Order: sequence, then C-alpha cells, then structure tokens
Amino acid sequence: MTAWKAEIQVTYKKSVLDPQGVAVEKALSALGYENVDKVRIGKYMELVLHAESEEKARMQVEEMCQRLLTNPVIEDYEYRLQAVSLERGTG
Amino acid sequence: MTAWKAEIQVTYKKSVLDPQGVAVEKALSALGYENVDKVRIGKYMELVLHAESEEKARMQVEEMCQRLLTNPVIEDYEYRLQAVSLERGTG
Repeated sequence: MTAWKAEIQVTYKKSVLDPQGVAVEKALSALGYENVDKVRIGKYMELVLHAESEEKARMQVEEMCQRLLTNPVIEDYEYRLQAVSLERGTG
Repeated sequence: MTAWKAEIQVTYKKSVLDPQGVAVEKALSALGYENVDKVRIGKYMELVLHAESEEKARMQVEEMCQRLLTNPVIEDYEYRLQAVSLERGTG
C-alpha cells in the first residue's frame, strides 16, 4: 500500500456569484492593492489515503469529492496527487 | 504589465487543532473510506494581479498574505504564481 497525499482545491463555478471574493477584492483595494482583480475564495483540503495504485487513489479522490467533499452543483474542484512516504505503526 | 495568477492555499499550522478536518475525516470513515487520514481543511484563494515582473508579483502576494489574506499567527500559506494572458479593456 502506498500513501498518497491529495491536495484538493474547491471553488465556486465561474457562473456562481462569490460574495466573499468580492469583499476581499474591495478590502485589498482599500489597502492600496488596486492592481488586483478576479479574486475567488474557495476551500482547500489535504488528506492522505492509502491505495495500491495511483489510479485507485485518483478514483477514490474523485468519488469522495462527488459524494462528500464538494457540492458538484455549484462547485468545481481540482486536485494534485503525490506519493508520500509515511511511517505507520500498524496498517 | 504582465498579469499573474496567484493560487494561494492557506492551512492551519501543524500545531493548531483543525476540528473541521477531524469532522470530515470522521464523515469519510462513516461513508466507508477508512483508508484516509491526516485530513486538514483550509482556504483557497485565487486572484489576478498586474505587475511588471514575477519578483514584484511575488513580493506583493507575500505582503497581501501577511496583511490581509491570512492570519500568520495560526496559519501557514503556500502559493503558486503563473503568468496569464488576459484581454483588458483599459489599463
């Protein structure tokens, strides 16, 4: 079993209004950062999962995103996966 | 002026308890994903900024993270920066 670290970025779909992003953009502008736009705020999740192959790890990450981690109706997600070496007591 | 897209991942420092991560890990386990651990939940932000050089863009992202986007006392951040081509009406 290899351990895989998944880094998942969740954002609202482009068509969904992101009021938090608008607020942060205004706050940045008020602080003098007027060269900033297109601010979007989302969620970031990282986790480690134990799977036999990268393909199985990917399938599971997709499934978890669809079932629990994101709301596919209004959110998009992207993830990166990398093998990590971990010491595990029991497994 | 080049446009730079910054993707910023904000997480609690390792030493800070992440109750949301614990809750998600339990929920995943209840759904049958028992091979998952080390779940951490954070924030993800993306923005576009206009700067003359990558170095200036990096300096500004760091400064914005320190001043507004993160709480450096309890949070860590990482970011990726890439040049993007955008059509701008005026600038």
